[in-house]
Amino acid sequence: MLKVIVIGSGNVAQHLIKAFKNSEKVELVQTYARNPGKLKHILSLEDITGSLQDLKEADVYIISVTDDAIEDVSKQLPFSNRLVVHTSGSTPVEKSDAKNRRGVFYPLQTFSKNKDVDFKEIPLCLEAEHPDDYNTLEKLAKSISPLTYSISSEQRQALHVAAVFVNNFTNHLYVLGSRVCDENNIPFDILKPLIHETADKIKTVSPINAQTGPAKRNDKTTIQRHLDFIKDPMQKDIYTLLTQSIQRTNG
Amino acid sequence: MLKVIVIGSGNVAQHLIKAFKNSEKVELVQTYARNPGKLKHILSLEDITGSLQDLKEADVYIISVTDDAIEDVSKQLPFSNRLVVHTSGSTPVEKSDAKNRRGVFYPLQTFSKNKDVDFKEIPLCLEAEHPDDYNTLEKLAKSISPLTYSISSEQRQALHVAAVFVNNFTNHLYVLGSRVCDENNIPFDILKPLIHETADKIKTVSPINAQTGPAKRNDKTTIQRHLDFIKDPMQKDIYTLLTQSIQRTNG
Repeated sequence: MLKVIVIGSGNVAQHLIKAFKNSEKVELVQTYARNPGKLKHILSLEDITGSLQDLKEADVYIISVTDDAIEDVSKQLPFSNRLVVHTSGSTPVEKSDAKNRRGVFYPLQTFSKNKDVDFKEIPLCLEAEHPDDYNTLEKLAKSISPLTYSISSEQRQALHVAAVFVNNFTNHLYVLGSRVCDENNIPFDILKPLIHETADKIKTVSPINAQTGPAKRNDKTTIQRHLDFIKDPMQKDIYTLLTQSIQRTNG
Repeated sequence: MLKVIVIGSGNVAQHLIKAFKNSEKVELVQTYARNPGKLKHILSLEDITGSLQDLKEADVYIISVTDDAIEDVSKQLPFSNRLVVHTSGSTPVEKSDAKNRRGVFYPLQTFSKNKDVDFKEIPLCLEAEHPDDYNTLEKLAKSISPLTYSISSEQRQALHVAAVFVNNFTNHLYVLGSRVCDENNIPFDILKPLIHETADKIKTVSPINAQTGPAKRNDKTTIQRHLDFIKDPMQKDIYTLLTQSIQRTNG
């Protein structure tokens, strides 16, 4: 049975800890947290260490800390030539200290503290410097999700950009939509079925074929009426730029 | 039992026809289509007329044609003082000819020809010039969906703008995300769980609280790395503008 140690206590770390604990194919040997109290709701305290010096032996060490801290934490590890991976979407594999065998274990999903996720539906993007280590990572990944992908650091960088578009920016469009509702005494709930259908549609239709609306139809009257309606200059800019981008895709 | 006639044969018209046919509380008396053949897969030909002059008597006439044609079709109706509504999100109620009692019956959803929708989950935005007519419309709406809302022409205009943000523009962000994947030999499927979770989250968390990512964290290093990665000038502009808009929301 693969032995794994999670280093970190943030959102992603906590979701990983829960997933490994629930898996029968992996042994979660130990977890490191600067402040062990942060994990006491999901682990018993004897399974948590507050000192990197006390880390036990394992097949894989998963560093799940903020991007800025990955380099530093990897340097502090008191051992060498073991498999050490990080979970960051935007950090190259080389950022970890080279004294250990390096890799990446990046779950491509948005995690909230208060919302459980089903790991079986989360794509795990894997990278390792050595083929043997890749096999180990794949085995570890398959223990919690069938969706594993071999993704290079460069591809991961691309994926992270794409994820910002489809997740962060999309959510911001929801924010703008909800603001328009607020300003006009319309309950935001009225937009939720549309939001869900928009996401649901691309299960069966490619996004390019799912595109609809005034920009796609080049319906100048409606576009102008909308621009007249929007008072906020930055919202107007967003409307104009995204309309242009849709129209360029048409052409 | 309420008698309804649908005028039109497009996407929305076809979904409405199916919904009314399946409802036990409404009688779909007749449908008008310029080209009756377009509807023969869902109606028998004797229930379709190709001439507005042949329209029968009904409690509600629903004009579901392109925005530009609403005025013209409403003028051609060979009767007066009946309840005539249109289904457009962006057309004021006054656009219909005043010889009839006017209203709006706007289903706020994105409709595709090849994808069935469950009307029970579609908000119906209702407007009528006369209170009695509003009651009739509400009864008609409730026959196919519990989600009915009284929405004025001005609110409907706002809703239509909000819908462009959360539907058309969101879908375009999916297009941009899929393009980044294509350019880097990554299957777009890898982004789908993230897209669905993004939409799913706002069932329980308000969009403003669901916001994550480098812009929200003001993570300048990652933002700059992403901007260096994106080569296309318009995509770079979109990244920059939406990042600014998120950061303004933070402040």
